[in-house]
Amino acid sequence: MSLPRILIIGAGFAGIECAKTFRDEEVEVLLIDRQNHHLFQPLLYQVASSGLAAPEIAHPVRSIFHNQENVRVFMEEVTSIDLAERCVVTNESRISYDFLVLATGVKTGYFGHPEWAKYSHALKSLDDAITIRREVLLACEKAEISDDPEEQERLLSIVIVGGGPTGVELAGAFAELVRDVIRRDFKRIDTSKAKIYLVEGQNRLLTMYDPTLSDYARQTLEEMGVIIRLSTRVTDLHEGEVILGDGSLRAANIIWAAGVEAPAFIRTLGVDADRAGRLKVSPDLSLPAHPEVFAVGDIANCVDANEKPVPGLAPAAMQMGRHAAKVILYQIALDEGDEKNLPAERPAFRYWDRGSMATIGRSHAIAEIREKKFDGVFAWLTWLFVHLLFLIGFRNRVAVLLQWFYAYLRNRRGARIITGVRRKADG
Amino acid sequence: MSLPRILIIGAGFAGIECAKTFRDEEVEVLLIDRQNHHLFQPLLYQVASSGLAAPEIAHPVRSIFHNQENVRVFMEEVTSIDLAERCVVTNESRISYDFLVLATGVKTGYFGHPEWAKYSHALKSLDDAITIRREVLLACEKAEISDDPEEQERLLSIVIVGGGPTGVELAGAFAELVRDVIRRDFKRIDTSKAKIYLVEGQNRLLTMYDPTLSDYARQTLEEMGVIIRLSTRVTDLHEGEVILGDGSLRAANIIWAAGVEAPAFIRTLGVDADRAGRLKVSPDLSLPAHPEVFAVGDIANCVDANEKPVPGLAPAAMQMGRHAAKVILYQIALDEGDEKNLPAERPAFRYWDRGSMATIGRSHAIAEIREKKFDGVFAWLTWLFVHLLFLIGFRNRVAVLLQWFYAYLRNRRGARIITGVRRKADG
Repeated sequence: MSLPRILIIGAGFAGIECAKTFRDEEVEVLLIDRQNHHLFQPLLYQVASSGLAAPEIAHPVRSIFHNQENVRVFMEEVTSIDLAERCVVTNESRISYDFLVLATGVKTGYFGHPEWAKYSHALKSLDDAITIRREVLLACEKAEISDDPEEQERLLSIVIVGGGPTGVELAGAFAELVRDVIRRDFKRIDTSKAKIYLVEGQNRLLTMYDPTLSDYARQTLEEMGVIIRLSTRVTDLHEGEVILGDGSLRAANIIWAAGVEAPAFIRTLGVDADRAGRLKVSPDLSLPAHPEVFAVGDIANCVDANEKPVPGLAPAAMQMGRHAAKVILYQIALDEGDEKNLPAERPAFRYWDRGSMATIGRSHAIAEIREKKFDGVFAWLTWLFVHLLFLIGFRNRVAVLLQWFYAYLRNRRGARIITGVRRKADG
Repeated sequence: MSLPRILIIGAGFAGIECAKTFRDEEVEVLLIDRQNHHLFQPLLYQVASSGLAAPEIAHPVRSIFHNQENVRVFMEEVTSIDLAERCVVTNESRISYDFLVLATGVKTGYFGHPEWAKYSHALKSLDDAITIRREVLLACEKAEISDDPEEQERLLSIVIVGGGPTGVELAGAFAELVRDVIRRDFKRIDTSKAKIYLVEGQNRLLTMYDPTLSDYARQTLEEMGVIIRLSTRVTDLHEGEVILGDGSLRAANIIWAAGVEAPAFIRTLGVDADRAGRLKVSPDLSLPAHPEVFAVGDIANCVDANEKPVPGLAPAAMQMGRHAAKVILYQIALDEGDEKNLPAERPAFRYWDRGSMATIGRSHAIAEIREKKFDGVFAWLTWLFVHLLFLIGFRNRVAVLLQWFYAYLRNRRGARIITGVRRKADG
């Protein structure tokens, strides 16, 4: 008899944790991702703002599992899923499954305007981050050789759309970059005059946090020189221009951190989903009509056993990944006729909220842990500690710590290297 | 009266040292490079073989000079030079000069077969190194999902053309990568069966070294499993195939490390050059018909005051850069009427040979210092020490040391991250 086959799509926090949970079990686990690395996404903004090198926040998926014999890793891109036939189609092959775990994450969404992708940078992958790093640094280089003040202002402007954690962290990091880190490097232009705009549709930043923390974030960013536009909707994007309800902004770099949506092959599944395409799941995290298919992490639209919506955070994704694995193991035991020793029904997912946090530049952060709210240096140190704790791989941890320490002491950033210009020009 | 303007093209070892030599002088220095970073080229093979991250061997040119007020840095690409008008044309502007220092380095040369570039990877820039890293790792991923043994063999084969230091270092690094580092990551294929070929036209490797060291390099590489083909000329390249005088080799990755040539805008200058386009210089490093133009580093074809050809090594480039700066300062003093205190003629360049070395994997290297020849662990430790000593920037030095230490202890490599796949597919 062949072992039950569990196919996991996506090697993010949810997929990795799910696969790890099967460590000592008699199952066959296939883990598919289109990248060869697990990405520590909470630090992606640091690569975009020249703080860290790309390999420092990524870890090869294969090496995470080289000691777990029942996991096989494939770098392939899923093109479609046949739920009726229990089969996943990739660019390379067709793979059948007994259980399917959708841990794909979400991609950048443009509120029904896919053409806006052309005029703005997203920040979801390492390539995205390297592109932002390159384009922002290149704009400074171009400003240095320009003699036209208006053109210089355009080159030195960055508009960030979306006042969630990514937007806030990017705005803080770019403000530091232009005001402190690279300022002395340029002799003709004053990069501290660069304009960093943060545009948010709602009336405060970080809407998932307590309003007092939103205010702290706004004040801190404004002290760093970031220009914040609240209650401001983007109505259109053009090349180098953001059209707002009440005017427009010209900027060489526009970063879109405002919305998310499901990958195309998820949207065509024909199952119950929300407007962004995230899959609605039963309390056990399976799809209502498909008890053998689970959605975990950002791709799941989940209300947990406490009747609270589960947030799109790494700890939530990891807990969901583990829960799906446990439900699958329950089902396998049940199918093998072990019902006497098992509970009557599949366990429901319950999110254990250990708090959440966001950083705003050097020594500023906000954190909400249980009922407590923190801001300032203590929150920042907590943030540092928690992020180091969760970075996979010793090497990465030490390298990142070293660079942060160095950046903090010397106010420099080591990774401000432009790569890929030639390739871009060729393509 | 305006200051004498010295225009330096290229921020490699020669250009950086030249610009630094003007630190306390009353001159205007313009430094142009098409990249924003100074590259520590001797370690480029480590990025290609997943040992180091790209930013670790690169340093922003601007930050090298942010304390030297008389240097301005521009990221521009030179398109042509008008020697008669004393003017350099770039993609952005037209810049006149009083003195010109050509420190461009050389690019990969294909012995009159530019079409071969399409079928092989060069290794001259960070982008080249990242491309090689990506393609070699991707080939392993494809081999893991292939069911065709012949195709697997092709995917796991790497041909390196050229048995100089770059070829030898790459062959050693790849042999370690497939035999030790990534072997446990793959469960279907055995990467240690990967075939790494090193093809050299001459009858020994590292022809610039003593034959005993060439033998040591060959033996060490062969013990690591590298297949060495000496006295073997490449007659043609096709997609995934190298045609030799006595047969052919099929390989998913072909790396060309065999020849160099001058950039296009140097070849059209119409001055005396060798077959590769390197400029023949007078004893003072100026061009024979243009005492105001100097060629330094790899772009110079130079026989020094000891009547020895100067090798294409970083220390030689640095010495030439400093010498050109001193000759320029001599000439400026002379033009200002200070002949009484000056020697009668420009000083001739004399290369101070502090030795040279190449590494062959973990704990093997060869070194030639003065009349002494070293091999083995001692040479490797010397190599480590010298390379760390010369890496610009504290951060890079510590990060590199840490990674080598980690790689040595754990036999892993942290930077085996595939980036740029999507961009490549788009372009």
